[in-house]
Formats: sequence, structure tokens, C-alpha cells
Amino acid sequence: MEYRAPERDAYFLMFELFRVQDLWPQIPAFADFSEDLIQAVIAEGARLTSEAIAPTNAPGDEQGCEWNDGEVTTPQVFKTAYAEIAQGGWLGLAGNPEHGGQGMPKMLAGLVEEMLWAANTSLYLYGTLTVGTCVCIDTHGTPEQKATYLPKLYSGEWGGAMALTESHAGTDLGIMRAKAEPQGDGSYKISGTKIFITSGEHDLVENIVHLALAKLPDAPPGSKGISLFIVPKYLPDENGRLGERNDWASGSLEHKMGIRGSATSVINYDGATGFLLGKENQGLAAMFTMMNYERLSVGLQGLGSGEAAYQLASSYARDRIQGRSPEGAQNPSAAADSLLVHPDVRRMLLTQRAYNEAGRAFAMFVAMQLDLAKYHDDVQAQTLSELLTPVAKAMLSDKGFEGAVLAQQVFGGHGYVREWGVEQLVRDARIAQIYEGTNGVQALDLIGRKTLRDGGVTLRKFVDDMAQSEVADEHQADLNDALDRLVRVTAYVVEHAADDVNLPGAASTEFLELLGLTIYAWLWARMVAAAPSDDFGDAKRMTAQFFFARLLPRTQGLEASICSPADAVMAMPADLF
Amino acid sequence: MEYRAPERDAYFLMFELFRVQDLWPQIPAFADFSEDLIQAVIAEGARLTSEAIAPTNAPGDEQGCEWNDGEVTTPQVFKTAYAEIAQGGWLGLAGNPEHGGQGMPKMLAGLVEEMLWAANTSLYLYGTLTVGTCVCIDTHGTPEQKATYLPKLYSGEWGGAMALTESHAGTDLGIMRAKAEPQGDGSYKISGTKIFITSGEHDLVENIVHLALAKLPDAPPGSKGISLFIVPKYLPDENGRLGERNDWASGSLEHKMGIRGSATSVINYDGATGFLLGKENQGLAAMFTMMNYERLSVGLQGLGSGEAAYQLASSYARDRIQGRSPEGAQNPSAAADSLLVHPDVRRMLLTQRAYNEAGRAFAMFVAMQLDLAKYHDDVQAQTLSELLTPVAKAMLSDKGFEGAVLAQQVFGGHGYVREWGVEQLVRDARIAQIYEGTNGVQALDLIGRKTLRDGGVTLRKFVDDMAQSEVADEHQADLNDALDRLVRVTAYVVEHAADDVNLPGAASTEFLELLGLTIYAWLWARMVAAAPSDDFGDAKRMTAQFFFARLLPRTQGLEASICSPADAVMAMPADLF
Repeated sequence: MEYRAPERDAYFLMFELFRVQDLWPQIPAFADFSEDLIQAVIAEGARLTSEAIAPTNAPGDEQGCEWNDGEVTTPQVFKTAYAEIAQGGWLGLAGNPEHGGQGMPKMLAGLVEEMLWAANTSLYLYGTLTVGTCVCIDTHGTPEQKATYLPKLYSGEWGGAMALTESHAGTDLGIMRAKAEPQGDGSYKISGTKIFITSGEHDLVENIVHLALAKLPDAPPGSKGISLFIVPKYLPDENGRLGERNDWASGSLEHKMGIRGSATSVINYDGATGFLLGKENQGLAAMFTMMNYERLSVGLQGLGSGEAAYQLASSYARDRIQGRSPEGAQNPSAAADSLLVHPDVRRMLLTQRAYNEAGRAFAMFVAMQLDLAKYHDDVQAQTLSELLTPVAKAMLSDKGFEGAVLAQQVFGGHGYVREWGVEQLVRDARIAQIYEGTNGVQALDLIGRKTLRDGGVTLRKFVDDMAQSEVADEHQADLNDALDRLVRVTAYVVEHAADDVNLPGAASTEFLELLGLTIYAWLWARMVAAAPSDDFGDAKRMTAQFFFARLLPRTQGLEASICSPADAVMAMPADLF
Repeated sequence: MEYRAPERDAYFLMFELFRVQDLWPQIPAFADFSEDLIQAVIAEGARLTSEAIAPTNAPGDEQGCEWNDGEVTTPQVFKTAYAEIAQGGWLGLAGNPEHGGQGMPKMLAGLVEEMLWAANTSLYLYGTLTVGTCVCIDTHGTPEQKATYLPKLYSGEWGGAMALTESHAGTDLGIMRAKAEPQGDGSYKISGTKIFITSGEHDLVENIVHLALAKLPDAPPGSKGISLFIVPKYLPDENGRLGERNDWASGSLEHKMGIRGSATSVINYDGATGFLLGKENQGLAAMFTMMNYERLSVGLQGLGSGEAAYQLASSYARDRIQGRSPEGAQNPSAAADSLLVHPDVRRMLLTQRAYNEAGRAFAMFVAMQLDLAKYHDDVQAQTLSELLTPVAKAMLSDKGFEGAVLAQQVFGGHGYVREWGVEQLVRDARIAQIYEGTNGVQALDLIGRKTLRDGGVTLRKFVDDMAQSEVADEHQADLNDALDRLVRVTAYVVEHAADDVNLPGAASTEFLELLGLTIYAWLWARMVAAAPSDDFGDAKRMTAQFFFARLLPRTQGLEASICSPADAVMAMPADLF
């Protein structure tokens, strides 16, 4: 697959829109990150992903993974590519410097993550599970656990995986059955079967560190009785070297629609040795701390797919000749004009682009809040990141999938066959809407815990901040309308939720999209204000014009739909479905 | 795959909504089709598809097709299933009775087609190409051609295929290169390479009849220089028996995202013998006559996928327990409540259902126009069918794909793996938006040839008819608003198209969706007026309530987007994409 990392846009977001060169010197942990260093990281990430990773994407999908008596073989081309990611230090980019990480901001790491996702989603899944495992151990682990696991994980010698789901317990983890028996020596014996374990078993690393959820014998029922355990494939000895093989194994691989280069195992724990991570019965909270941080990465996955798909489709549309312009032949010496003369093809491309570029800006904004919360003790940033994380995960993955489907449509029949690579992007992008909490769960989190719980105060404060931003004059009125609509709809939901307990759930998905589109409008209006007077800036202004004229109007229908009684959703008896 | 054909809804549409028992006795060709006969056809189609066809769907996808030195092998399970379709006479259901067809109305055949698509899209593709070939030969063939080919095709002993696309010429067929050399004996030698030839070569029938487009030596350039040829795999002898093997062969199979049981060939014509069908240089028009009739079938394919996906998702949602109702535990003795307590799950299911049932009614309405035009010389019905066919093809396939994706979302992670069958439906449904003219091409046809060419007169007349229908009182006001919006938007487009030549293309896709949603509103309001006082009728009323409250509002955003200058789409120079 051809892929060029969006370097120019990355620099624009960092230095022209969010001006990290003014922000980071105020944060001691980031004070050393000069403009030159940031540019070097972005440029090297761009080189790595375009040259070394992207060419492995199609072969990885074609070969897929193989299971043989518990051993899992990844695609041939993944070995060298993964080693480049690991040896380049990319897995420890935002990691804890006390244990081998590089301590870089999430804003910067997020830009690189998008590139890795775009270049090869299946391959980077081995990486992102490792990064997530590190976040969890760094946040909840003992000093010994950190010292044992983090350096090996940051370096990519070992890999990570999360074992949450059981076949009957997905979104509702409270009803899981996996058990943990204390052994009296501080360790536990873990038993049970977990499914959908991404990177649970594979051959890219010498050890795989599972973080598994299980219930202690005397645990309270439901989600308050779940604990989290470190369950490595090989038990480290006192020197941190590989010791005894642990008692778990991959029972089989899932046959998936996409991400076929990513090994997704059923894992059977047969009295495997585990070590408590964090406190007893507080495993779900510990896991969610990490997931909240990592959810942004799954949004970035969707964005990466959307960007890769846009690049394929726009390149195809420039080169492919078919039909004539409504204005008459534009290239009369050729048999036909390029696809770009057709307004409907442009509509599809501009839709992708408007969502991608706003999505990238949004992800950077959320990453900035995560950075401010983590490194600057900024409580408002923490609250704002909690409000926006589910929006980013769902919007970026929804629009990434929508964009990949539009790119496929630009290709016509050529988009449905393997040859051009775009059908793979559609299959791969789809998963980001489902895992790490389905987008429906993100929407419930947004409308319930993040909006209704404080009566909409946090959201209202964010709206006020958006209203006071410096934006382009030509989009101020449309932005104001959008903000007014959001305030109106939020007030409606807050007011009616008490009497109509099903209303939040009924409205949740559309409420998330309404907020997402409003944030995109705000960011487009800000980007136009910051855009330079060159081709790059012209493209920003034209894409913004398209967004306001053709995409933002969707919020009108969303308002009408959200502000209707939940009865339309709830009336039908279960047996009539 | 589990599948139950929607028999009750079929009877409702035929006898309660469209009342064919009053209509058909006025049409001589249909006078003999009694209620009993119609019910027997529907019931037998339901039995066939649920019991014999649906179980072949997943195995066919898993095994796929194989190519070996020009020979193509279809999935093992397809042989018996296809023989049942052929021997049951289903391919000749709407065929010409003078040549072995059963002469049944498209309204009835369409209901059966939906079932066949739903049960196994890949398998029925071998059938639908055969039916399409028959329509074309029946319309444009000589008496000898009809006598030679139709009986063998209706009986399913032979199969059909359409050879249009070349690798550089898809939507723009005018630039094709395939050649036809007259041989002086009335036959032609066909040379060239065609791609994406569905059912072009396979092992389910003893002969395959290609209808291939090619250019005569002295043909005018572009689309007015294309002729249509019958190019059978084996040349029939004077008695219609299989004779000499013709000089074409499958060069390879395409590797597709879905419909993997359907063999899609590259076909190399190496001086193959062909027989002119219709007139020289009028091949494209002949092909489009047929395609206009068959486009409804591709819409029905989308509907079938949407219906099959809804059935899987609603059944899963009833059985799967996960989480608790916002109203508190509904099933306190179980570990969790059913998915159906969650409003957002209901939203997804009701969206699918509202589109499926309106889509089915819409398809039947279009089929009724096709029947009236063909068998009752009804010129208005002909004009109306031409207006609505692109809408049906695009709306039904778009909403079929959207519905399959929603069904997949209801399944969560289980929707992404092969086991439950829903991911296959997503992959299979996607193609209906692309082939038989992409949905973008349908939208251009609607706004250009079918709307702007007569200044919107045909569409306006249809709106007036809709406004005068007998509909449920509770939806009359919403329907009137929707009709007013459609009139307003159409007037805007008609008025501005002359000055802004790119406006129709820029607005086309959204204009089609606006018209489609308005028609769905009209049909929902009519269905509620005709719905009986029982559970079936209750479900209709509740689904209608959902449609008006939650889906029709999308038209608000469509109006705002359509009624904006095309400049937002056209401004960006090609090299900035």
C-alpha cells in the first residue's frame, strides 16, 4: 500500500494551531522538547511508516495468522517490520523515563500512532496492546512490577495483551466467570477461558504479558468483584529473565472480517500463575483508567484508516479517466476527463478529508488535555479529557469507517477487489467501532457519566470555551448556531432525563454525533483562522467551506431526532422484534 | 444461516396495501393469478429459501470459487441448491410464457427475488444474471434467438452473463476497446478482454450465454458506437443442442471483499463467434433497457441482505443477556437483562426494520409500475418506473448495507467474526451499492435525465399523487412537511441548475436520499392506514412512529446541504486533492 504520513498537517497542528512551542516550556516534563526534536520525531515516524511498514499491510492481510497446537505464527513480513518499530523505541515514546520510556507528550505520540495505524493496523495492534499494558502497570503496579516489566515492554522484547472478554460477558464484564485462587505466597492461580484476546499469543516477541480480569473466591458479585492480574507467558525469574512456562495457552484463533494479520486468540487459563495488579476487587477501575487513556488510540486507528483510504482514493481519482465534466471536456485530447471533474466524486473525497483533518485536530486537542492532566496536574483538563475521550473514540472510528467506505465507492468495482487495497481498509476500519467499548457504550458514557451526572456543567463550560475561541470571521455565525443547538439539545436531555429514564440511551448515539460535529465545526473555524497563505492554507479554507456547507447541516436532523420522546424506541414489546 | 422469509409482510403488501386482488383482474395477462396461486408461490419460495438455500450461504463463502486453467469450480454446496432453484422453475417465474416462462408479475417475482438474495446472495447471482439475459433476449432478440436461448435459460440448464466492463472502462463504456468483426455469414468475431464478469464461467450449468458489448470496425466513437452480441460458451447447432466450444475463456477470478461464492471472471475473447442482438451500434441502449428492469433486482439484493441481517440481530438481541435496563432489572433472576432493554440497541434494530419494511413496500410499488407499463401499456407507469428505478436501486442497497452494519454492531465483537454470519452479510451487501451502475450513477440519472430533463414535471406529478393518497391521520402532517420540503428542494435545483452546471452533480446523492426518505414516509403513512388490528399491525404502527420521530428528520439536513452552491464542492484545484 502506498502511504505518505501527513507531515505538513502534523506541523500545522503542533506549531500553528495548538502552538506547543508556547505551551510545552511551561510544563517541566516537556521543557526539553525543542521544535527540532519534535520535527525529527515526526519526520522519522513518517519515514518508518511510509517506507518500512506500509508495504507489509497487504501481504499481512493475505497471509493472515496461523494456529498450530497452541503456537501462533504471524505473517512472514511482520517480523522485520515489528523489529523496526521495537528497536526504534517507538513503543516507549510516551513511556515512563524511569523505566526506559522516552516521556514524550501524548500529543506527539498520537501523531505517530496515527501513522502506524494507517500504515498497518494489524501490525500496530501488537504494539498498542504493549503500550496499553505499560500504561496500566505504570499506573497501578508496585515498584518491583514496574522494574520487571516496563523496560522489556518498552523495548518491544516482550509484548502485552488484555484479557477481559468471555464468550457470554463482553460489555457486561460483571458477569464474568474467570477465577483467581490465592496461593498464600502472594501469587494467584487463574482459571477460565477468555475470548477475543488481541495479541494474546504470537511469535513477534519472546514473552507475552497478559493483564487478565478474574474473580477472587470471596469477591462481591458484579463489577465490584473483579480483580486484575499480571499473567505472563514465561514467569520472570528473580533477575527478570525468562523462567518457567505459565499454564495458559491459545485454544484457537478467531476468523475475522478484517485485521487478519492480528492474531486474536481464545485463551485458556488452566491454573496459570498471576500476580495482583493494583488492589483486590478494584480491577475494573484499574483497567478503565488505562482504557480511558488508550481509547484515544482506537480513535486514532479509525483516523489512520480514514487517512490511508483518502490517500488511495484521491490518487485514484486524479489518475483515472472516466466520463466528461458537466462543464464540457476538460482534457479533450484524452478519451475522458479525470474522476475529479465529477462533483459527486469530489463530494466523497471532501467528506473524507473534512472528517480526517478535523478528526486529527480533535485527537490532538484531547491528547493535549491528557498531557495537561498527567504532567501539569490540571484538574480541568482531566475533566475535559474524560468528557471528550468517548467522543473521540467513537467519532474518529465512525468517520474512519465512513471514509473508508466512501473511498471504496470512489474506486467503483476496483474498490471491491483485493488488488487496490481499499477493501482491506474497510474491513480493518470496521473493528475500531466495536472493540475497546463499542461506540454505543462510548455514547452512553458520554451522555450518562460525563453529561447527566453533573447536570451538563462540564459540557456547558466547554461550550463557553469554544464560543470564546479565536475563529475565522466567515464561520463565526455558523459556529454560533451550532453551539446554540448543542446547548439547546443538552438542556432538553438534562431536563427530560429524570422523567424519561430511557431518553438518554435512546438519544445517546445521536447526541455523541451532534457534539462531535459541533467540535469539528469549532476546530475548522479555528484552523481557518490559523491557516497560512499558501496552497496548504487554501486547501484548509476550501475543505472548511465544504464542511460548513455540506456536513454540519446534519446537526439539524440530529436535534429533531434527539428531542423526541423515547417512547418511539421503547414501545415495541420484545416478542414483536 | 437461519432465515425465515417475511411471508406475512409479503401478504400484507400484496393484499392489504396494494390490493393486487383488485388490480390484476383488470390486466388480461394476470387475470388467471388467483389469491391462492399467489400465496402458494410465496409459501413455496419461503420454504425453498429458508430450508434449502440459506444453509448453503456460510459454507459457500468459506469455500469460495476456484480457478484452474480456465475451468471454474463453485462451492460444493451450490450444486444441489442451484438445481432446486432451476428445477423449481424459479428462473422463469416472470419469463415469457411463449418460450417456457411462467409470465408472472414482477411484483410477485420481486418478493421471491428478495428471499433468494437474502438466503444466499452469491448463489442467486448465477440466477439473476440468467434472468437478466432472458429479459434482454426477449426484448431485442429475433424469433430464432428467442426460441434457441430462452427455454434453456428459463429452465436453468444454461446460464447467462453480461460482459460490459473493461479494466479502463467501467461507468464510461464509451471508451471500451472490444472489437467485433463481421464474418459475412451473419456472425461476428469478438476480441478483447472484459473484467468483473459475474457468472462469466462456472460449473453449475452446461452452457453459458454471454451478452457482450463490442465495437464494429466502422462504429462511430463513444457510446453511440457500441453493439451487443450473444456469445455462448458452446455454439448451439441447428437443433439447439450443444455444438462447438467457442473461443473465449476465463483468464482468472477476481479476489473480492464478499460474494465469494460468486465466480467473477476476467474473460478473454479470442475471435469468439458472436451473434448480433438488436441493431448495430445500439447495443448500449439495448443493454440499458434490460438494466433498468434489472436494477430493481439489485435493490432487492440490498433489501435481502438488510432483512437477513435484521433477523440475525433481533434474534441475538432477544437471547443475549448483558447489562440491566435503565428502568432497573427486568429479569432479576438472571445474571443480566436481554439486549432489548437497551434503548440504543432498539434504535439500531428499529432503524433496520423501518428501512427494510418501507424498502419492501417501495420495491413492490416500483414493480407494480413495471408490470403496468409492460402488460397494461400504461405510459404514466412507464415514466414513473423510470423515475423511481434509480431511487430504488440506490436506496435499497444503501440502506441494506447500513442495516447490515447496524446488525453487526448489535452483535458487538461477535459480529466481527465469521461464526455468526453477520460479517459475511456486511461484505456481501456492499457490492450492491457498486455494481449495476454505482449508486452515484443512479443519483446522477435521477437528478439529470429523470428530473431536470422535464423540468421536474414527472417528479411533481408523483408528489401530487403521494399528497392525495389515503394515509394514517397521525402521520399526515409530517408527510405533508416532507412533501413540501421535496417540492421546495426540487424547485431550487431546477431553478439553479442552468446557472450552476455542477449543482446537479454536487447535490445528486443527497437529492436521491431526500426523495427516498420522502417516499418511505409516504409508504409508512399508507401502511399504517392499511395495517390490521393485531400484533402484526401493532408492529407496523410502532415502527412507523419510530421512522417519523427518528429517521425522517434527516431530510432537514439534506435540504440545507443540497440548497448550497456547488462552489463548496468545486473550488479545490485538482492538484490539492
